[in-house]
Amino acid sequence: MAHEVVLLDFWPSMFGMRVRVALAEKGIKYEYKEEDLRNKSPLLLKMNPIHKKIPVLIHNGKPVCESLVIVQYIDEVWKDKNPFLPSDPYHKAHSRFWADFIEQKVYDTARKIWATKGEEQEVAKKEFIETFKILEGELGEKPFFGGETFGFVDIALITFYSWFYTYETFGNFSIEAECPKIIAWAKRCMQKESVANSLPDQKKIYEFTVWMKKYFGMD
Amino acid sequence: MAHEVVLLDFWPSMFGMRVRVALAEKGIKYEYKEEDLRNKSPLLLKMNPIHKKIPVLIHNGKPVCESLVIVQYIDEVWKDKNPFLPSDPYHKAHSRFWADFIEQKVYDTARKIWATKGEEQEVAKKEFIETFKILEGELGEKPFFGGETFGFVDIALITFYSWFYTYETFGNFSIEAECPKIIAWAKRCMQKESVANSLPDQKKIYEFTVWMKKYFGMD
Repeated sequence: MAHEVVLLDFWPSMFGMRVRVALAEKGIKYEYKEEDLRNKSPLLLKMNPIHKKIPVLIHNGKPVCESLVIVQYIDEVWKDKNPFLPSDPYHKAHSRFWADFIEQKVYDTARKIWATKGEEQEVAKKEFIETFKILEGELGEKPFFGGETFGFVDIALITFYSWFYTYETFGNFSIEAECPKIIAWAKRCMQKESVANSLPDQKKIYEFTVWMKKYFGMD
Repeated sequence: MAHEVVLLDFWPSMFGMRVRVALAEKGIKYEYKEEDLRNKSPLLLKMNPIHKKIPVLIHNGKPVCESLVIVQYIDEVWKDKNPFLPSDPYHKAHSRFWADFIEQKVYDTARKIWATKGEEQEVAKKEFIETFKILEGELGEKPFFGGETFGFVDIALITFYSWFYTYETFGNFSIEAECPKIIAWAKRCMQKESVANSLPDQKKIYEFTVWMKKYFGMD
């Protein structure tokens, strides 16, 4: 079966990055289409009419939306190389639980660290650290959340690493001082080409955030 | 393999009901343990230390948490009878997308219909109707969201039906007038024993909500 794969994405999106990492892990060639989220393309609106959001994976003309749904789809279609999810139902459920935990807890809290100030920012920093300490507990002494190999939970979380410099700079704190095992894990992930090539430079994300805050009058 | 299955649950929970429906669909015998959420059992706190929430499925001593994770787990362990998810990856992704849509859109909005008043309640009613009109569009002329057979998306959504009388009474509106196809679909689901036996009576949920509003001083 021939695979025509197109990714609608936006470079600083941690959700888009998840799909980039997954495609790279499987060695899938694809066409990358950058979206301007202030002026969404007719293709994006047609392919994701419900949420109108990136990322969208278009596989042989058919869209798959929502990053964790896409990552599972990629794992199921290209199942022979680097499986993301274990085959055992219990371990699979465990991975899904933690990916869901990340989905519920990380994004909104992390966003408040750079997008708010004062009390709201302080609460967000505290919650962010609490969340990552729980994640550190789950990681334990394993090299990856998936165990010996990089998997679904690693893909769900590692893309936030590209935003760490932004969180630390706006929040005036050190994630490494609070969660050293998370940083060691992130560096381990970054040694993988699939991750290193899919995540933008942390400083570029910071510059983008500075620009965005000005653009939307968030200062 | 012998299966020892225990469900930690709370009777008015639409999340707990999802697991009850899934277990009934597969014909699995289990021990039901009702939790008092004002005084959570040591077993619940031990089995779900992260969220401390029901439902928890304990299968041969090992916990699985989060309702949609549990439903997928049940489908994968007891895979021979009444599959919830299609085997094709694209259709599977499609089902996961809609279950995720329900997860993102329904609960918080629906809660505001009985828990708030005035402007906030009006906004919630409008959003609720918009969400269910989108779901009606997805259902189309199919008997179930899964097509000819009752599946994952049906399980994710049908349990809210037991709360419809509560939403309608507090919100002073008719869901059937707005979304007749959703009501026809819900009645079709209720013809299944697995659903009818797992959902409490709508009036009992209403009485529970009236009691809860008084108890928490929400009037």
